[in-house]
Amino acid sequence: MDTKCLQAMLQEFADVRDWDKFHNPKNLAIALAVEVGEVLELFQWLSEADAADVRINEQLKARVSEELADVAIYLLRLADKSGVDLDAAIAEKILSNGKKYPVDRVFGSAKKYTEY
Amino acid sequence: MDTKCLQAMLQEFADVRDWDKFHNPKNLAIALAVEVGEVLELFQWLSEADAADVRINEQLKARVSEELADVAIYLLRLADKSGVDLDAAIAEKILSNGKKYPVDRVFGSAKKYTEY
Amino acid sequence: MDTKCLQAMLQEFADVRDWDKFHNPKNLAIALAVEVGEVLELFQWLSEADAADVRINEQLKARVSEELADVAIYLLRLADKSGVDLDAAIAEKILSNGKKYPVDRVFGSAKKYTEY
Amino acid sequence: MDTKCLQAMLQEFADVRDWDKFHNPKNLAIALAVEVGEVLELFQWLSEADAADVRINEQLKARVSEELADVAIYLLRLADKSGVDLDAAIAEKILSNGKKYPVDRVFGSAKKYTEY
Repeated sequence: MDTKCLQAMLQEFADVRDWDKFHNPKNLAIALAVEVGEVLELFQWLSEADAADVRINEQLKARVSEELADVAIYLLRLADKSGVDLDAAIAEKILSNGKKYPVDRVFGSAKKYTEY
Repeated sequence: MDTKCLQAMLQEFADVRDWDKFHNPKNLAIALAVEVGEVLELFQWLSEADAADVRINEQLKARVSEELADVAIYLLRLADKSGVDLDAAIAEKILSNGKKYPVDRVFGSAKKYTEY
Repeated sequence: MDTKCLQAMLQEFADVRDWDKFHNPKNLAIALAVEVGEVLELFQWLSEADAADVRINEQLKARVSEELADVAIYLLRLADKSGVDLDAAIAEKILSNGKKYPVDRVFGSAKKYTEY
Repeated sequence: MDTKCLQAMLQEFADVRDWDKFHNPKNLAIALAVEVGEVLELFQWLSEADAADVRINEQLKARVSEELADVAIYLLRLADKSGVDLDAAIAEKILSNGKKYPVDRVFGSAKKYTEY
């Protein structure tokens, strides 16, 4: 994924439709949440086993693929309109997660996430 | 952003911590939604004008940057564990949106989104 | 709203359809999020002014009304299946918010919410 | 739950803090989504079995209870500020769901939800 290139395409897409005026960060954050709701919808009543089968269930995978693309599009757009360098942000976050969760303290446990 | 490379790093990150067992598509979809909730939280009480200032408000931008990174990480991970080629999905979606929203029919209007 | 009565009706609704097996707390939490995504969708591209007009825009209000009902239904159901007394939880929370946000310290400010 | 009474209390709560100005429908819809994100967070890494144990896991139940109260509070507030009669909306929705999902056609199946 070439972040800058995709962001330029999406900007062009909005500009020619005169939609840029709708794409302020607050609206884009809402749009991102709406699309994530549509991802969740695909999984809501599936057992974990059936959800895991997305890899081999072509019909479900096609739906998931489409919804994830929508999420990615609004994520790229929101980063752009917020002045955030998404590539740098991801790299930094992975590094900081590495420090935050030392292997020997969190191995095999979801405790780091949840304390109850 | 090199999608495959980042996904391999995140797989490694999960493997060495024995966290892969938590990372089924259903859980990752939930995690994605949780992170998007944290993005929304940053904007919830801001006026549209103040939200738009994220570009020049360094403190807010740093928060947004961090939360968008979390969203990106779970998006990459969910695509990977679902067998979805995220780069291809994004490209296809942008093309299909181009057809779905012809410039001359949607120019300047949010009607395409909303019919009330 | 008679919480217990509605919860009993929803239990009956699920039982006669043999849907109770899908209604574990995790699935219901996802369903709640999906419905809230549909609420957000109604507001995503509206200006704050247009969004505020929901009171006088009958078409929009009918849509909002229907989506809020879906949210309420899954909220009631999730509380029930989690063993949570929703009425008591709400009362406690309002009281604790009263202590947490003393009038003289938070008057007119969203700072309590946001520190940037 | 006495919907009108709680809504009047929440209005009073906002008024004395001069917070009513933040509580337009769009912001309240976002706040609702943020709180639902916090509900999801409690379940994200739990197996379905562990999530179901919320009824007997007092620590988890207390957390769920608190987050559900937050969801209920913003739901009541959003309905109020949108001019929606929440009690009537819920009753109507349950009746219309009864028609939409006839017992003999949906018995025991999540198909009604998902077509893949």
